[in-house]
Amino acid sequence: MTTGTSGIALTPAQRFAWLRLSRCETIGPKTFRQLINRFGSAEAALEALPHFARRGAAPLRIASIAEIEAELEAAVRLGAAFVALGEPDYPALLREIDSPPPIIAMRGARAVLSRPAVAIVGSRNASAAGLVFTERAAREIGRAGYVIVSGFARGIDARAHLASLETGTIAVIAGGLDKIYPPEHAELLERVVMQGAVISEMPFGWEPRGRDFPRRNRLVSGLAQAMIVVEAAHRSGSLITAKFAADQGRDVFAVPGSPLDPRAEGTNALLRDGAKFCLAPQDVIDALDDRSAGLPYPSDLFETAAADMASDPLWDEGNLFDEATDPLRAAPRIEEAVSDDGGDLALAPPRAPSEPAPSELELSALARAKVVGLLGPSPISVDDLVRAAEATARDVQTVLLELELAGRLERHGGGLVSLL
Amino acid sequence: MTTGTSGIALTPAQRFAWLRLSRCETIGPKTFRQLINRFGSAEAALEALPHFARRGAAPLRIASIAEIEAELEAAVRLGAAFVALGEPDYPALLREIDSPPPIIAMRGARAVLSRPAVAIVGSRNASAAGLVFTERAAREIGRAGYVIVSGFARGIDARAHLASLETGTIAVIAGGLDKIYPPEHAELLERVVMQGAVISEMPFGWEPRGRDFPRRNRLVSGLAQAMIVVEAAHRSGSLITAKFAADQGRDVFAVPGSPLDPRAEGTNALLRDGAKFCLAPQDVIDALDDRSAGLPYPSDLFETAAADMASDPLWDEGNLFDEATDPLRAAPRIEEAVSDDGGDLALAPPRAPSEPAPSELELSALARAKVVGLLGPSPISVDDLVRAAEATARDVQTVLLELELAGRLERHGGGLVSLL
Repeated sequence: MTTGTSGIALTPAQRFAWLRLSRCETIGPKTFRQLINRFGSAEAALEALPHFARRGAAPLRIASIAEIEAELEAAVRLGAAFVALGEPDYPALLREIDSPPPIIAMRGARAVLSRPAVAIVGSRNASAAGLVFTERAAREIGRAGYVIVSGFARGIDARAHLASLETGTIAVIAGGLDKIYPPEHAELLERVVMQGAVISEMPFGWEPRGRDFPRRNRLVSGLAQAMIVVEAAHRSGSLITAKFAADQGRDVFAVPGSPLDPRAEGTNALLRDGAKFCLAPQDVIDALDDRSAGLPYPSDLFETAAADMASDPLWDEGNLFDEATDPLRAAPRIEEAVSDDGGDLALAPPRAPSEPAPSELELSALARAKVVGLLGPSPISVDDLVRAAEATARDVQTVLLELELAGRLERHGGGLVSLL
Repeated sequence: MTTGTSGIALTPAQRFAWLRLSRCETIGPKTFRQLINRFGSAEAALEALPHFARRGAAPLRIASIAEIEAELEAAVRLGAAFVALGEPDYPALLREIDSPPPIIAMRGARAVLSRPAVAIVGSRNASAAGLVFTERAAREIGRAGYVIVSGFARGIDARAHLASLETGTIAVIAGGLDKIYPPEHAELLERVVMQGAVISEMPFGWEPRGRDFPRRNRLVSGLAQAMIVVEAAHRSGSLITAKFAADQGRDVFAVPGSPLDPRAEGTNALLRDGAKFCLAPQDVIDALDDRSAGLPYPSDLFETAAADMASDPLWDEGNLFDEATDPLRAAPRIEEAVSDDGGDLALAPPRAPSEPAPSELELSALARAKVVGLLGPSPISVDDLVRAAEATARDVQTVLLELELAGRLERHGGGLVSLL
């Protein structure tokens, strides 16, 4: 779990292919993983995609070579680097989350990425007491040896970064590494770069939109062993981060507050639903000391606090909240494969390495139409779909992947799928 | 449990004897119950006491007839009344606690004593937010039909009484009914008397001392189905009340607050240890609605918050926190006996009604010395004592009662006793 130096570095060509594959619009982390597992490498997947995606009935735009070259140049100008999943500097805890970004862009000190971390998040319009508590927590937990991770927002986040500059801090931003939001944090960003790290999974030049923030929040929680929600209103982004943290098996702490303060609504609800009390920074440090013997955090917590959020799709890959039973997870996982077969960067053993990719797409048009015809807006299980289609599981998965690349498939929890 | 109109009224002579027996210095509620169960009536106990207590090796001062007459006159002057355990107006929930007062003095409207109640307690130096929350809670819960009980202190208590004058309030005071503390609450007291009730278990003329306050707190919690701690510092009286409430099977609610506010230390600790969240008054009303189907509140809560208090003796009868396994509880309980055999106010069937009380004290001096010799400052179980003394359980109990009346015995939890 903390094998921070495992994995091997990509060649420049491989890194180029990874970046290009990950920058395709409908290829999020989960699809990326499926493609690597199916085709053996990013290069092979990029070669197969045009044939494969044609069947999905909606155009798949693959990033051009020029776009990727432009992004690499932008990175060089900013002194940024890319770290791919499976490479030694890729944060070990992040590798274990449900949808780890295939590649992250970073500025600053790589070393902070492999240190143990605690996330501190909260309201943008923080109270004076919330800011004081944040500063104290970031300072004390930082001095205890933990990097402080936060989301670089106004209020609690900014104070958490500021108070941990000396001991180590990571800012995870929702847009491209060259798109600073909020703009008044430009100076803070440079200080974080000098003394910590700023990371993003989004392309250079990407202006953050609303849905990029909750997507980003899974990285804030994913980087950390524990997280503290200092202040959070009802239905706030911090509660989404807390939900991710619980699902990722992280310790979730919340700071209580007066019921008369709307900024305590979210934290009080988290506590009522089972989050741990953070009454002093030491509470978190003590819990992490005990954590080696610890049990995973139960993921059915926070139903009250986050229940109505779960129905809002957060980003293009749909339901992040539950895909534990995704049938495709039976395929070798990227991170497992890295250590087994890292030599040629076939991140998972390809199903049939010598088989040309298009040949496996030779499904009869009838079989394809049958599977698509059986799908509708109501979620059904892939198993039921296989039975109803009287097709092989492999053929049904091929059609589902085509639809997914075309952005026409939604995956729900429990191995359920529906047509968008 | 809510048979508010059960029981029968005492005659004036019986009430006089009850008052006189209960006013003996070393006779607290538990000893009172044992005496009634043993001798059949307060009159018989008073007659037996001089012979009985002589053996305890320390003088037992029985209240004089003149003192009791003076107290009755003081009560008449104030328009106060006495209500004895087992009488129709005695609060039904209070009757069920571990050490119900044998007799309570009251001023005001008897009717509020038999209505369902919620206790609201908290800091004397309350915050503005705490006072606002208290007012809102007292008002809304009062309007929902519950009498508000509190301890008449400055701060939260006073606000709770004020906000529930219209709907019904009970103030439980730690001194005699004619000793108003704090003195500046004299006007508030008269308003509570006009629109609610003020009660005390202490004699008229009794100036409240430090240890009378925690003793009183068991009545605040005992009168109510649920209690809310609005603000409470570390090791405060409100936490003692919460501990009583939990032991009495009441729902304990606490209002969270900022860890930077010392007035929230106690409430946050209660919540961390399992108290229910009171984020709005409706939380309590909803819980009481569900309460009919409810389970008793687990009594092993609040160990953190109240653990170090448990070792402090709160009042003359020692350990209030745990006497569930008191071997003498095997004797018929007063409240059970009231309905069975109320006619002549033998509140429990006397062991041998025709036997003259002194005759049962005819233990050999040798046997008595043996039991006393076996006792020391280390707590031992009554069962072990019986075995070691090679005496009958009844004889050992007789010696223990003598020692208890002499103020020389301490009863611990789990049927353990030691010499003081």
